[in-house]
Amino acid sequence: MSGTSLDGIDAALVEITGCGPETEVRMIDFMTVPLEEGLLKEIQDAITLVSSNAQHLCSLNFKLGYAFAEAVKEICNKNEFSLDQLEFIGSHGQTIYHQPEAHGEFIQSTLQLGEPAVIAYETKTKVVSNFRVMDMAAGGYGAPLVPHSELLLYKSKTKTRLLQNIGGIGNVTIIPRNSTIDDLVAFDTGPGNMIIDEICKRYFNVPYDANGDLAAKGNVNERLLERCMSIPYILAPIPKTTGRELFGTQFVDEILEEFSDLSPIDLVTTMTMFTAKSIAENYKKYILPDHPIDEVIVGGGGSHNKTLLCMLQELLGVDSKVIVQEDIGFSSDAKEAIAFAILANETLNGLPSNVPGATKANRLVVLGNITPIPY
Amino acid sequence: MSGTSLDGIDAALVEITGCGPETEVRMIDFMTVPLEEGLLKEIQDAITLVSSNAQHLCSLNFKLGYAFAEAVKEICNKNEFSLDQLEFIGSHGQTIYHQPEAHGEFIQSTLQLGEPAVIAYETKTKVVSNFRVMDMAAGGYGAPLVPHSELLLYKSKTKTRLLQNIGGIGNVTIIPRNSTIDDLVAFDTGPGNMIIDEICKRYFNVPYDANGDLAAKGNVNERLLERCMSIPYILAPIPKTTGRELFGTQFVDEILEEFSDLSPIDLVTTMTMFTAKSIAENYKKYILPDHPIDEVIVGGGGSHNKTLLCMLQELLGVDSKVIVQEDIGFSSDAKEAIAFAILANETLNGLPSNVPGATKANRLVVLGNITPIPY
Repeated sequence: MSGTSLDGIDAALVEITGCGPETEVRMIDFMTVPLEEGLLKEIQDAITLVSSNAQHLCSLNFKLGYAFAEAVKEICNKNEFSLDQLEFIGSHGQTIYHQPEAHGEFIQSTLQLGEPAVIAYETKTKVVSNFRVMDMAAGGYGAPLVPHSELLLYKSKTKTRLLQNIGGIGNVTIIPRNSTIDDLVAFDTGPGNMIIDEICKRYFNVPYDANGDLAAKGNVNERLLERCMSIPYILAPIPKTTGRELFGTQFVDEILEEFSDLSPIDLVTTMTMFTAKSIAENYKKYILPDHPIDEVIVGGGGSHNKTLLCMLQELLGVDSKVIVQEDIGFSSDAKEAIAFAILANETLNGLPSNVPGATKANRLVVLGNITPIPY
Repeated sequence: MSGTSLDGIDAALVEITGCGPETEVRMIDFMTVPLEEGLLKEIQDAITLVSSNAQHLCSLNFKLGYAFAEAVKEICNKNEFSLDQLEFIGSHGQTIYHQPEAHGEFIQSTLQLGEPAVIAYETKTKVVSNFRVMDMAAGGYGAPLVPHSELLLYKSKTKTRLLQNIGGIGNVTIIPRNSTIDDLVAFDTGPGNMIIDEICKRYFNVPYDANGDLAAKGNVNERLLERCMSIPYILAPIPKTTGRELFGTQFVDEILEEFSDLSPIDLVTTMTMFTAKSIAENYKKYILPDHPIDEVIVGGGGSHNKTLLCMLQELLGVDSKVIVQEDIGFSSDAKEAIAFAILANETLNGLPSNVPGATKANRLVVLGNITPIPY
C-alpha cells in the first residue's frame, strides 16, 4: 500500500495460516520502497483537483500498478523468496480521492489507483484489491479498514487496548477487553503527521520531524491550538472519517496566513500538540465514559515522534500506558500493510472483513475484488 | 456496457452453457436503458480533459455503478427473472480514457468506470469487470475484445466472415473459414458513427442519422473525403486501435473550419462515405490479399444506417455480401453486451479470452477481475 502521507510503498511479506478468528500471522519482512520522484509528483498532481484529468489518472493508475509490482518483486528478492511461492498479493492502492459522505453533486465514493491487472501480470500472482469500495457500497465510510485485523492481532482477555495509528491522518480502534467484532469501534481522530510534515517541508526543508526533535524545541501557541481544536470535525460524534481534504495544504495555507507572526519552530510544536490533543480529547469524550483505557499502542510514522508520544502520555495521565507497536513485538511501520494481507486472505476465504462499528456500513461485507492469475 | 457513442446502457440477459469452444449462448432479452441526462453530462465532462478531475471521476465511478445495477434490475424485472437466479454479471463499464500506446509522459493505459462493488452490492450478484486492463498489462491495445466471442458465435466451415461493428468507432474481426483462435485478426477500421452523430447534433438537432435518411440526400465532397482518408491512422498497418480521441469533437471542429463552405447535408453524406470507405480500403489493403471476403456482417448502431450499408456494398463489389446481424438471427444492438457476458463466463472458468492477433498482446490472458457476492 501507499498511504495518504505519500512516504513510499509499504510492502510486507507475511505468512498467514487459517482465516477468520483462527487467523495466524507471521511477518517475514517489511520494507518501504521510496516513490520515484516523477511518480510522487504525478500523485500530488492527481490529488490536487485543478491539475488532475482523465488522461492523467488513466496513465497514473497503470504507473502505480507497475510501481506496486516492483515493490513486491523487491521484497521477495531481498528475502530470496520466489514469486512462484507467493499465494496472493493484497493491494490497497493509492487513495486519490475519498468522499466519505455525499456533498453537492458528488456522491459518497472513494478512488484508489494502482491497476491490479498490472500487478497480477507482472508478478504472475493472484491479486486482491480495492477493499474500500464495497464497504462504501454498503453505506459505510470505506474507512477505517484496519480494525478487523487489529482485533485478530491485538485482542486481550484482560486489557482494553486502543490501537492508535498516526499516519497522514490519525485513527483509532478500540478493542475492549475480551471483545468480539460486534464490540469494535473505530474512527479517525483528526490529523496525524500531515500538517507537521507540510510545515517541516516548507520551513526546514526536511520531509518530517525526525524523532520529534523540532517539536521538542518550540512552544505551544495556545491561540493557534484553540483555533485548530475548534474545527468542527475534531470533536464531531463518532464514528467519523476524514482525509487529506480537511488537513492538507489548503489548511496549512490558511493557518500560515492567520498566524503569520508565529516562528516556524513554534508552528511545529503547536501542530504536534494539535495532533496529540485531538487524539486525547476524542478519547476523553467518546471512549473513557464506556471503557478504561489500559494501553494505547501507537503505530504509523507518528510512533517515531517522541515529542508527540510524550505529549499524548501527559494529556492522558498515568492510568493509560502509551506504548508503540515495537514494545509488544510488532512493527509500527508494517501494521497497515499487514492488515491488507489479512483482509485479502479473508476475501479469498469468502469472509467479510469490514467492521460496521468503525465504518458505519449497513452490514458485514466481503471486501475487494480478485484478479486471477493471468496465464 | 455503455459504449463510446454514449447512447445508453446496453443490458443483455443471456443463458450460457459450457465454456471455451463448447460455449453455447441463448439471448433471453436485450434492452438499452437511456443514460439519465445528468449522468450523460457528467460522462461528457469526464471525457473532456479540461473539465475532469479526481473528485469528479471518483463520484462518477460510483454513479455509473448504480446506473449499471439499475439496468440489470430493469432487464430482470421485465423478464420476471429474479436477481437470485442470476449466476453472474459481466460489466464492461464506461470507457473514460483509452491510451492504446504511450504518448509523452502518459503510458499505455485504459480507464473504464462503473464501480463493480456497487453493482455487486445492489444486485447481490458476483460481478466480472474491467476486461480491458489485463490485455493491456500483457502489452496489448486492450481492444478489440469482441473477437473471442465472435469466433465462438460466428465461425463457419465454408465462409470467411467479417464481423464489422459500427459503433462510435468502427472495428472488424476477420474469421477465416474453418479457423481457430490463432487465425483471428481484428482491428479498428476508423470512425464509425461518431463524426456523423456529431454533425447531426450540431446542424439537424437529432442525435444520429436515422436509417441514413440524411446521408441519402446529399452529395459526397471528394476534397473533404480525400482530406479525411489521408489521416495516417486510416491506412496504418494492422493491428491498430483508435478511439474518441482521434475522431471526436476536436476533429469535427477542424473539419468545419477547413470546409466552412460545405452544406450540412453534404457534410453528413461525405462523412458517411468516409466511414464506408475507411472500412472498404482497409479490407482491400489488409484482408483481401489473404482471404476471400464471403460475408460482411454489420453490427452496432451503424447497421441501421441504410445509406452507409449501400455505400459499403458498392465499394466492396458483388463477391462480398454485406448483411446485418439480424439477417442471420442475431441482434446488432446486443452483440457487444453479449460478448462481455461470454468473456465473464470464460474468466469464471479460468480461461483466457483476449485475441493477441487482434490486440497485439504478448500472450493469451484471463481478462477482468471478480467481485464476489458481498453478503
